[in-house]
Amino acid sequence: RIIEVIEQHQSKEQPLAGKKVLVTAGPTIEVVDAVRYFTNHSSGKMGFAIAEVARQLGAEVTLVTGPVQLDEPVGVEVINVTSAKDMYDAVTKQFNEQHIVIKAAAVADYRPKKQHSRKMKKQDDDLMIEMERTDDILKTLGKLKTDQYLVGFAAETDKLLEYGQGKLERKNLDAIVINDISEEQNGFKSDTNAVHVLTNKGFNKAIPLKSKHEIASQLFSIFIGEMSGDGS
Amino acid sequence: RIIEVIEQHQSKEQPLAGKKVLVTAGPTIEVVDAVRYFTNHSSGKMGFAIAEVARQLGAEVTLVTGPVQLDEPVGVEVINVTSAKDMYDAVTKQFNEQHIVIKAAAVADYRPKKQHSRKMKKQDDDLMIEMERTDDILKTLGKLKTDQYLVGFAAETDKLLEYGQGKLERKNLDAIVINDISEEQNGFKSDTNAVHVLTNKGFNKAIPLKSKHEIASQLFSIFIGEMSGDGS
Repeated sequence: RIIEVIEQHQSKEQPLAGKKVLVTAGPTIEVVDAVRYFTNHSSGKMGFAIAEVARQLGAEVTLVTGPVQLDEPVGVEVINVTSAKDMYDAVTKQFNEQHIVIKAAAVADYRPKKQHSRKMKKQDDDLMIEMERTDDILKTLGKLKTDQYLVGFAAETDKLLEYGQGKLERKNLDAIVINDISEEQNGFKSDTNAVHVLTNKGFNKAIPLKSKHEIASQLFSIFIGEMSGDGS
Repeated sequence: RIIEVIEQHQSKEQPLAGKKVLVTAGPTIEVVDAVRYFTNHSSGKMGFAIAEVARQLGAEVTLVTGPVQLDEPVGVEVINVTSAKDMYDAVTKQFNEQHIVIKAAAVADYRPKKQHSRKMKKQDDDLMIEMERTDDILKTLGKLKTDQYLVGFAAETDKLLEYGQGKLERKNLDAIVINDISEEQNGFKSDTNAVHVLTNKGFNKAIPLKSKHEIASQLFSIFIGEMSGDGS
């Protein structure tokens, strides 16, 4: 880890020096009772790779992460959260002072309406769990946005570009990274990914299968290009 | 790990030599769709400790485990499963030839009635998730039982002994290990535990806070004592 830190300081290419970058990663946990919860298959690997690369490019990085099994990236401020509500609070609190915000976390859209602190006893019958929508973090950030460069992720199994383009516009994003999770090597758990990037300037590019670290590097080339007015 | 294997072979106290022991561990995952799932906080540590101690005591051990972040115990046959249905199938298939069966897994009682292979699109409204009961593994084993020594676990937050005694009788168990999960140091994630053991011969003992490995050792003293007719 010392070597990593030295390498980082020696690197001449620090296009994000002086910039603050906020990255979210991992799943959230939505509690049903003392034992049971809802969650999702996000491993946090993509978000952690993005945080790492942002740091290597010279940024001051804050990583807000749900529960994952990964080592903390060197030189990055890590904020651990559990629920969608925690994630919302941490991210909105930090948003104002950021230059780039990349929301790679897979935040629960729904949480159980009632959360029991004790363990519910089971019944013989079926059980209806009433779920309510969580606050939409990306949509909130899209409204709060002043001059932050705001990037969302879309994990989809169907109509990828159509859903992605819709989300980009609806949530007032600068860019969206679309992830086809029906392919195993692009999946949540894998170390590789293949994505499709759309931006609100009309940039449209498929990035073929690569390590999540390489994907992160390529994403920053695109974002930095766009931020500096070079739209290609 | 080589040293562990050697130590094991050198150990003189092998009261379970020639016995087959089946242990279950960890949570199960019940899929809602391609991304979302329902699970629980079991870490698998208690079940893994039991499997390890059973092996050290000379048994031939099969460990059926849900998804956990633990190293496989040395010299134990590990069967990985995901859902309650997988766990049911694996355990009932193995049950007949076992001498001792210890069900430490936290198997989901409920699973979503519909499981979507694609990702469901979210709606603005609330969402009702209809859950159905999974097959009760312990109850099934209690019915299938010939001369197996069958041990269940109860993770409770309330009325521990009352619920535990009820489960012992209702499911035709030989013993039940009751776990107060409202205390953090007894929790699913911790390396320590404190339990209360009840047996169908009327044995009743609280085991105070200890490492899960020590708890496992003490449990086997009790079970072996009971199986050999020494009820104390």
